[in-house]
Amino acid sequence: MPSSSRSPDVLISEVGPRDGLQSVKATMPTADKFRWIDALVASGLREIEVCSFVPAKHLPQMADAAEVVRHALTHPGLTVMALVPNLRGAESALKTGVHKLTIPVSASAAHSLANVRKTREEMIEEVRAIVRLRDQIAPQVKIEAGISTAFGCALQGVVAEDDVVWMASHCIAAGADESGLSDTTGMANPAQVRRLFNRVRAAIGDKTGAAHMHNTRGLGLANCLAAYDVGVRTFDSSLGGLGGCPYAPGASGNVVTEDLVFMFEAMGVSTGVNLEKLMAARAPLMAGLPGEPVYGMTPEAGLPKGWTQAVQAPAALTL
Amino acid sequence: MPSSSRSPDVLISEVGPRDGLQSVKATMPTADKFRWIDALVASGLREIEVCSFVPAKHLPQMADAAEVVRHALTHPGLTVMALVPNLRGAESALKTGVHKLTIPVSASAAHSLANVRKTREEMIEEVRAIVRLRDQIAPQVKIEAGISTAFGCALQGVVAEDDVVWMASHCIAAGADESGLSDTTGMANPAQVRRLFNRVRAAIGDKTGAAHMHNTRGLGLANCLAAYDVGVRTFDSSLGGLGGCPYAPGASGNVVTEDLVFMFEAMGVSTGVNLEKLMAARAPLMAGLPGEPVYGMTPEAGLPKGWTQAVQAPAALTL
Repeated sequence: MPSSSRSPDVLISEVGPRDGLQSVKATMPTADKFRWIDALVASGLREIEVCSFVPAKHLPQMADAAEVVRHALTHPGLTVMALVPNLRGAESALKTGVHKLTIPVSASAAHSLANVRKTREEMIEEVRAIVRLRDQIAPQVKIEAGISTAFGCALQGVVAEDDVVWMASHCIAAGADESGLSDTTGMANPAQVRRLFNRVRAAIGDKTGAAHMHNTRGLGLANCLAAYDVGVRTFDSSLGGLGGCPYAPGASGNVVTEDLVFMFEAMGVSTGVNLEKLMAARAPLMAGLPGEPVYGMTPEAGLPKGWTQAVQAPAALTL
Repeated sequence: MPSSSRSPDVLISEVGPRDGLQSVKATMPTADKFRWIDALVASGLREIEVCSFVPAKHLPQMADAAEVVRHALTHPGLTVMALVPNLRGAESALKTGVHKLTIPVSASAAHSLANVRKTREEMIEEVRAIVRLRDQIAPQVKIEAGISTAFGCALQGVVAEDDVVWMASHCIAAGADESGLSDTTGMANPAQVRRLFNRVRAAIGDKTGAAHMHNTRGLGLANCLAAYDVGVRTFDSSLGGLGGCPYAPGASGNVVTEDLVFMFEAMGVSTGVNLEKLMAARAPLMAGLPGEPVYGMTPEAGLPKGWTQAVQAPAALTL
């Protein structure tokens, strides 16, 4: 059957509107967020992390979270995700009708305290409480526990692989539907990615979630390739590489969605995303954040001579 | 045995002084080239492509090629390489006492005519003539045929894999000691890299040479990983990513040596190169080419907390 009608091989989960926008100083106006999300959807992206539910005093960039979710929900076929750091955030998110929650839990004891001011054990209890609330008021919503600092921590350095497997297993035991691994500070390498995803899969099977890789030291795509090689099929990335660690000046953060989609499509691994339309989604991003640097090698170099892409986005959305 | 005393797992072949310097407008003064090469050697690099032997009217940046070779030869244990596009260049190079020649031969018919004004068949005859000369006057010198545009061509688009295998096989039949594959314009993807290196190895066995990858669309390291996965153990790269295609503004060219070494060392694949000393070699590069942009994610981000590297460069040189 033609590649345009088959189901894509991988799921690209766009995190720019959450991970990207919460990492920059400026606040993108709500109307610009809507236009950006619309353009992302038009490219064929099927899952977008649109916001985080955190107190506006901490992250004014996310003060319009509920509005943004409601707008994103108008796109049929789109999985609308939100980050929630705790039960209170989950309660707000679940009221909006969001499809999926992601909860950041750290494998590093030091990062857990610094990031969410809770121990790892307390975060597992938080996951359990959020699952209980979800079961009561919105049982159709999926919950992902994303293991931060899974490949190393800027505070404590090395993170034991046993700790990562332990966290993933306990989050699943607490009721999370899936658990992915995040390279929060860009310390992962391909050998480690293969080893750790294999270990996590041995522990939690097909509840193994996304690879969330950063490009801090240039290894983002190599790490995504390594994850793909061992069976990972969901990849977080950010349009224009927006976001990542605001405390590493000059070092870009998230894997660039445009480059990731180019890599997979060039390999013959279908993403369901149309690259030209994806690159067109940079315009509303830049319009909404004037002066903010955006990254991406494929947009700078352009598509190679002779490039063809079979996918007809957004046909992939009509499931 | 300690990792510092074992032979490194991979060979990083630094091409900056040739591929980098011939791609920038400015000419690095000879004394600065010496200082840069000295710093590269001090980091533990064991093979450097130091110049190309081409008419100075075409490439004034390479007018001091013979002097540069003679200086590089003062470093014991270093393999000194030079690029030669034809028999006349080879004659000049062999007179200097260089250890290894690399001859660029295109898999793309269009690129072959544009780059060296010869057909592919004529280039195979040129390889044969260079081999004959080498056998007569410097039989200890190794000859590599580097297959340009092996993964695609900016002029003709797709390059047939059969053409690449044909070129590699005929260069070896003409007497070349090895044949590597170059992604001249950054069109390669990891699936293609694995497939094509496997096919070439099936044809020419352990005469399969280096992977010369570009980072034009951000896939440079992923392609090196893919090549490593199928048994490639020599990798070309350029300090600071200097060089590449001068006709692709904004698109960086060669894989960045610093990031490549970081990737392998982080994976536990030893390179024999000390990363701190390698990054220190950026200073003489920048001093010799004021204002020229240099790239590299690892130098920008710095080494991760807890980073240790067992290798004690340049101990690896004392073979």
